[in-house]
Formats: sequence, C-alpha cells, structure tokens
Amino acid sequence: MSKDHLRDIQSEPDYRKIPINKVGVKDITYPVVMLDRNRGKQHTVANVNMYVNLPHHFRGTHMSRFIEILNRHRDGIDTRKVKKILEDMKSELDAETAHFEIEFPFFMTKAAPVSGEEALMDYRCRLAASSDENFYEVEVNVPVLSLCPCSKEISSYGAHNQRSIMKIQVRAGYSRIVWIEDVIRVAESSGSSEIYSLLKREDEKYITEKSYENPVFVEDIVRNATELMMKIDGVLWFSVESENMESIHNHSAYAQICMDLK
Amino acid sequence: MSKDHLRDIQSEPDYRKIPINKVGVKDITYPVVMLDRNRGKQHTVANVNMYVNLPHHFRGTHMSRFIEILNRHRDGIDTRKVKKILEDMKSELDAETAHFEIEFPFFMTKAAPVSGEEALMDYRCRLAASSDENFYEVEVNVPVLSLCPCSKEISSYGAHNQRSIMKIQVRAGYSRIVWIEDVIRVAESSGSSEIYSLLKREDEKYITEKSYENPVFVEDIVRNATELMMKIDGVLWFSVESENMESIHNHSAYAQICMDLK
Amino acid sequence: MSKDHLRDIQSEPDYRKIPINKVGVKDITYPVVMLDRNRGKQHTVANVNMYVNLPHHFRGTHMSRFIEILNRHRDGIDTRKVKKILEDMKSELDAETAHFEIEFPFFMTKAAPVSGEEALMDYRCRLAASSDENFYEVEVNVPVLSLCPCSKEISSYGAHNQRSIMKIQVRAGYSRIVWIEDVIRVAESSGSSEIYSLLKREDEKYITEKSYENPVFVEDIVRNATELMMKIDGVLWFSVESENMESIHNHSAYAQICMDLK
Amino acid sequence: MSKDHLRDIQSEPDYRKIPINKVGVKDITYPVVMLDRNRGKQHTVANVNMYVNLPHHFRGTHMSRFIEILNRHRDGIDTRKVKKILEDMKSELDAETAHFEIEFPFFMTKAAPVSGEEALMDYRCRLAASSDENFYEVEVNVPVLSLCPCSKEISSYGAHNQRSIMKIQVRAGYSRIVWIEDVIRVAESSGSSEIYSLLKREDEKYITEKSYENPVFVEDIVRNATELMMKIDGVLWFSVESENMESIHNHSAYAQICMDLK
Repeated sequence: MSKDHLRDIQSEPDYRKIPINKVGVKDITYPVVMLDRNRGKQHTVANVNMYVNLPHHFRGTHMSRFIEILNRHRDGIDTRKVKKILEDMKSELDAETAHFEIEFPFFMTKAAPVSGEEALMDYRCRLAASSDENFYEVEVNVPVLSLCPCSKEISSYGAHNQRSIMKIQVRAGYSRIVWIEDVIRVAESSGSSEIYSLLKREDEKYITEKSYENPVFVEDIVRNATELMMKIDGVLWFSVESENMESIHNHSAYAQICMDLK
Repeated sequence: MSKDHLRDIQSEPDYRKIPINKVGVKDITYPVVMLDRNRGKQHTVANVNMYVNLPHHFRGTHMSRFIEILNRHRDGIDTRKVKKILEDMKSELDAETAHFEIEFPFFMTKAAPVSGEEALMDYRCRLAASSDENFYEVEVNVPVLSLCPCSKEISSYGAHNQRSIMKIQVRAGYSRIVWIEDVIRVAESSGSSEIYSLLKREDEKYITEKSYENPVFVEDIVRNATELMMKIDGVLWFSVESENMESIHNHSAYAQICMDLK
Repeated sequence: MSKDHLRDIQSEPDYRKIPINKVGVKDITYPVVMLDRNRGKQHTVANVNMYVNLPHHFRGTHMSRFIEILNRHRDGIDTRKVKKILEDMKSELDAETAHFEIEFPFFMTKAAPVSGEEALMDYRCRLAASSDENFYEVEVNVPVLSLCPCSKEISSYGAHNQRSIMKIQVRAGYSRIVWIEDVIRVAESSGSSEIYSLLKREDEKYITEKSYENPVFVEDIVRNATELMMKIDGVLWFSVESENMESIHNHSAYAQICMDLK
Repeated sequence: MSKDHLRDIQSEPDYRKIPINKVGVKDITYPVVMLDRNRGKQHTVANVNMYVNLPHHFRGTHMSRFIEILNRHRDGIDTRKVKKILEDMKSELDAETAHFEIEFPFFMTKAAPVSGEEALMDYRCRLAASSDENFYEVEVNVPVLSLCPCSKEISSYGAHNQRSIMKIQVRAGYSRIVWIEDVIRVAESSGSSEIYSLLKREDEKYITEKSYENPVFVEDIVRNATELMMKIDGVLWFSVESENMESIHNHSAYAQICMDLK
C-alpha cells in the first residue's frame, strides 16, 4: 500500500478552538556528542525532550519529524547549535515556537589535590531552550562535601559531614556563552571541600582537614555560590540550590536562592 | 552538659547581605492521614518538604522545628489544614514566608464497569502551598488508556493503544475546595477509556470496545481535559499534561496545555 | 452480553510443553496494615508482586484473582499470615507453587539520645515467601552514620563521615518469628552511630562525639552486623550489606557478607 | 607531608575472623567504549560496580585501585576483555576472587519495516563476571509490543495492547561469545511486534496489523523466547522475563522462565 493513500489525520482541522502549548516527544535516550571547552568534544548519552506549539485549528503534530531532526544534529550539540535545532523544529513542524531540552552526564578530568592522580568526574547537566525566549538555560548538578559548623562548634571533637548535591541553573543570552565548566567551578568552590573520583591517602588527609577548617551550613553554601554567580558575565538569571544528604538524619537539609539580574 | 551551654550558631548574624528564598527540610518519608470526601479520612505515606525564607541578617534556621510541626499535624492534612501548618511554620521559625509540599498516593475504591467488582486504585497526588500566595496547588497523576486515531484509520484492523499518565495541576483560592476526586474524574473522562485495578472478562470486553470507539491523540487528551477543567468552579489556573507511553516506540508522546483563568 | 459467552482463552491448552516458573501481577501499589510488635498494627503503603507457577499444559493464568486475594488480606499482613496468602493463591489459581513479595516503609517511634524527643523513623522493608520453601525472607534497609577510621588516623583533626544504607536479608522458618525490629536494631548497632528524624543541639553533640570515638570502615560495618546476626535465634541464612555514600567521592563504598547457618 | 608517614590502617590485621564476600566500589558513572559486532565499537555511559573478596585477617581493601583499573580499561570493554579486568583486580588488590558488573545503554541502528527509515534504538544492557565462575552473564532489556489474545477474542473489534519490557539473562563460557545483538533479536521476535524509534505512517499501519494478527499473553512471550534461546549455541543457563505495562490496569502482568542447560 502506498503512503499517499494513508489518510493524514494529524493534519486535519480541530474544532475545539484550544491551542496547545507543547506537543512532541519525551524521554528519548540517544547517544550524542557535546562540544566542550577543554577537549573539543565528548561522547555521552542524553535524555531528550522536543516540543512545539500547536495552533488551535490543527488536530495533531507529526511525531517522527522530531526524531529525524535529532538524528541530524546529534553529533555536535552545544548552546550555539541549539538555536539551529529550534529553527529546524519550527520550519519542519510548521510551528510558531519550539522547545528543546537535553539532559546528560558531562565528564571532566580532575586531578587529586596532593597526589595529582587524574580520573573522570561526572556531572549531571541539562540544556534547555525555547524559540520564544531570548535566552537559553544551563543546569549543572555538582556533588560537594559539607561539614556542619554547629556540630563542630558544640562538639569536643569531630563534626558531622556529608555529600551535598548543588544544583545551579543559569539563563544567558545567545551572544554570551556561559560555560558548564565555569558553573561547575562555582559549585565546587562553595562547599567545605570539592570531591573527587580517585584519591590517595595524602589527598584524603588534605580534604578531611580542609573541610574541618571550612565548615558550612546549607545556607552558607547557597550564599557562597550566589556571590560567585553574580560575578559571571552574561548571566541574566540564576538559581542556586543545595541538598545536603545529612549523615545524622534520614532526610535532607535544603536551601535555595534565586536572583534576577536583568 | 546542659543545652544552655551549647552555642546557637544558627541564630548568629550573617554579614553577606544575601537573603535566602527557601531553607528547610526535604524528602521526609512520613505516615500521614489525609482527609477525603468519601471516606472521611485515609491513611497513606507521604514525602514532605518544608521551607521558610531567611532574612539576610540571620545565618541559619532551626531544622528540628520543621519535624516537630509535621509531627503535630500528621493526623489530619487537607487543603484547609495547610493554612494552619504554614502559620505554625512562620511563627515557630520566625519567618516571613513558609512553603509546604506533600506528595502521597491517594486511594479510591473503584467498581469495574460491567461486573461491578470493587478494588482500590492508587493516584499519586501532591499538595503545595506558600504563605505568600492566596492560593494552594493540587496535582493529580492519573493513568488512562489512549488508542491512536491514526493507527485505527490507516489499518485494516486493530489500533495501537497504551497506558498514558495524565498530570493535572490546579491552583485555587482557600475559600474554595477543589476536590482531588473531581480532578481525577476530569482525567478519567479525557482518554479513550479509564483503567482499573480489577477487571473480569466482561469488563475487559467493554473497555476494549469503548476505547476502539473513542480514539484520542495525546493532543485530544489535553484538549478534552481542558474543556472539563474550565467548568470547575474556583479554579484560578491549571495545567494539563499527558505522557503516552507509546506501545510502538521506546519513548513517549507528550502534550501540555496551561491556562490562567484569573 | 453475559460472562458465560466470553471464551476463556487462558484456560485452553498450550502445546509448546514449556512450564512457566512464575506468572502473575507486579508492581501493585496498595494500602496495607502491617502487624507490628510494639503498636499491634500500623498503616502503610506497599508495593506488591504475586506469582504462581503454570504447568506446561495451560496457556495462561487468571490475573484478576491475585487482586481479589490481596484485597481480602490487606488489613493484616505479617510473617505468619503470609502462609495463608500463599495457600489461597495456590488453591484459587490452581497452582502448585505460589510466590508473594511485599515492600513497604515501616515506621518506628524513636527517641533522641539526650533530649528524649520523639519522632518517627522510616525503614524500607520487604517480606517475601514461596510455598515451595520452608522459610520466609525479611529484608530491612537502615540508614546509619559511618565515620572513616583512615581519615581520622591520618588527619590532624576531623574525619570524613556520611550516611550509609545497610541492607540485611534474613531467612527463617515459619515456627520462628524474626522481628523486623530486632534486625533494625542489629543494623543500628553496627555503624559509627545510629541516626534520627529529630535532634536537638545536645543530641547532635552526642552523636558527633560518639561517631568520632567509634570509626568504622564499610568492612567493619558488615563484620559488626554479622557478629550480631549470628546470635539471633531461628536465622537459617542471612546477608548483610552496607553502601556508604562517601562524602569525599561521587560513588559508594560497598561490602557484603553472606552466611548460611543451616 | 609525605605519603610514607600516613599509616595504612586498611592493611592492618582484623581479629574478628570473619571473611568478607565482596568489598569495593559501587555506582560509578563512567564513559566507556563497548566493542560491538556491527560497528566495531560504540561510545556509551556506564554504571559500574567492582568488588573483591577480603580474607578474614585483613581489615580493609584499597578503594582507589579499583578506579585506576577501570580508568585503564574503559576504552575497550567486551565479554573477552572482562577476564583481563578480573585478573588485574585480583593481582592489584591481592584478592582471591574479583567481581565486575557494568550496566549501559547499547545502541543499534534499526530500519523501519516498510519505509526503511533508520534511527537508533537503545537497549539497557548489563555484563557481569566473577573470577570464581567459568562463565560470564549478559543481560538485555528490550521493549516490545504485546497485544492481548483474550481481549481480541472476546471483543467485537480492537484489542488492548501495550509496551512490554523483556529481560533476558544469559550465562555462557568464555570460549563462546554470546552476542548482545543475538539476544536482542530473540526478544524482538517473541512479542506481537517489535518496536522502533522512528516510524512513518506506512510503518505504523504495518505494525498495527502485524500485532493484531499475532496476539500474545505474557506467558506466550516468555515461552516464545525460551524456544529461541534453546537454539543459541554456548548458552549454559538463561532466564527470560516479560513485564507487560498493561494499558487497562495500573500494574504489570509478569512472567518468567528460567532454564539450566548444563
């Protein structure tokens, strides 16, 4: 049977007069190549969502075209290329607005602080953009170590500490590149100590002592990061969160600061 | 050692002049009693977040007080009681604004459409409120069956269908109760058929035929729900989403409509 | 249309001569009442799997009967009642063997070590049984605090510590009740300190100092728990695991000991 | 401070006389290159666990060495290379037995059945091996479409269908390579139809009709796969599971067959 004989219901009119904000494909697992500042590019695996708006007079969109567009662009994605992806989505899906969201582990080589031994650290990142906004949004999730100032102060020795997950979201205009690497740096400078994949004993001693000398509440972490974020050029808006997976509790301590710099 | 001798670092001043939007406890698993329209109350297990703001001149908040407040209110939570929880948070944590979020499975007895056999269906729900808003927000997640109109139209027999997860979020003022049960009803009326925990053969026949007679795209589902949501009294804002876990793909089809009725 | 006219395909013969080990329903969310030693009973929400075997000559099983059986027993489940559930499954599904698995958060009131303030702690538990075994299996997941002996030894001050999740699985015969509460106690005695939902400053001081005085590697945790498990009457087999969510790394340290006492 | 002055507590003796089955690192996210039959190699992102045993007289193992070994081998992992990884773990960690587990999305180019349009499908896979076993284990998770024979039989038109996730685990000796691609093929031949990332209307018609002509219960799926698995050379043991995410229910139908061919 030929394709031409198959009725295209999606293109038929709809009579309810209700436009749809977003319609498309969600939760696609796809291998992609992300462009990065240090290594040029890196292979990773992404989870992708792609949506367009749908005017009130159309019944449906054409889902397979999203996958074709992703297929074409998967070998080089960064904040600048996202604009081209949004344009392709608009023109090939006949839409007024397009939305693109991609989540992926981003890897950086990191040297241990004393031994200098290198290994890869993973940071869960997200890049999102809409054709009807003049900014894109970058999100990084960064694990750090936090040591409690109260516990240190009131105890004769020791202090409880734990892994904290910092989430920083940034909006920036397309004329400026906000580097993932710079935002990760902000997060790793805001806790009691940064953390690593590979540590030797001399590194462990260094981190233990550094964090004891530098205790932070969850409130301090987000304030520290806020001070640093305010110095990055081109940031229009940011949100800084920290979730401390408390070692003395079975729940998290949490704080958030949100700032509009426009 | 007495409590009085332990220095209270959290209450000491902070000099960075940065206020914190939200600080508190996150991801607490707690048994709660939710008030419901049909049965008066139901026991369930919740995941709870509680935050307050922190003025720029304080260094930290007092995390244990959140748990004490939750403990006191866990035996009767509904949209009206949430106001009291927010007030307690503000006064006991000396804050200007308080935020309360609770997620929980909500159970309803449901009779199969032909046999009438009864069993419990679970719906994942969420209730969120902030003291600086004059509304609360209710979210329900409802599984329904969706059968593809295109597949039905172009095929000589059969049509692919699948489980879809509808998410409806509603904001309403405190003078109006928007019942979880009513929002679930909207969702269950918007797909090709509603679904059940317990079905006999005669019920399965009924649902299979009903859904074949009533095909819907993901776009139709959110439009159907939008028409119904616009008729519920007291709704200030709503968002309707559907995620169809496509049986012919390894990703989802997705649509969203968002509407401000103020 | 009457039920009698609907052909019962599941009961028809199958010609491939392949028996099926397990067939049934999986991932049911249901409110249940668990019997407990201290409070008599507690309301919680469970995730349930129920399977039977299927001889080679039958084509299918009758899925709705599983839900009917669960419905009948949901108001009082414990290790003894599980035997009756298995018997009902066998007779109502015409099967030779039946399998029942239930996972649920279990709550215990816990007093802080110095202030004595009480709050509920949640422990994720699992109960599993098969009619063809003469034992049942209980699993508890218990968060504890672990403080690193190496970090303490090599550092001039402080020591990194973190939340660890201990998992203990126990098999026991039906003539003996192995109490969830006793297994939780083993886990909470095996780390550097147990942890709590609600702590005042004097409690935080106590826990900080106690854990600094009692450093444990992940290897020590499972050895400590093994020594305690060997003393519990009626245990036929156990496995003890600990996953330390390292505060200096982005991965976990892990250890397991498995012991057959038959 | 020099490394030599830092006491190596892990290497000190332990007096409890309890050997540890497994100790090591868990839940490492790492970019790896997997060798594959069609394309030579593919970049993906893995979740890795690495353990060794610990004799009763040692107190602890050396966690950083696991990461060093992973680092060295990450650019070429397959079933044959795993033997070398296990050997390195044994010798560098001074252990008698070593365990390696790696989970990763595996991508294959797949052409739509009528249009021939190509796109990538993702399959979640796992490779596990222990130095004390003379086999390795491969696991693939494959989504397929299942259409209910009972629903088709009793209904005047239509039939409910859904996405099913098949899990096949295989053990094979090192002298034989069991290809991931072959096991995926078994799964994709066992449901009502295989599924795709990218489909045009003529493909959707084809799949809809094919699945209606080929209805399968969850029991049929695992029996179909069992017949095919028994024909693959070199298989010592396998388990076949299917979890049908029922479109008429909020839970899954499930079946498993396990077979020892030694």
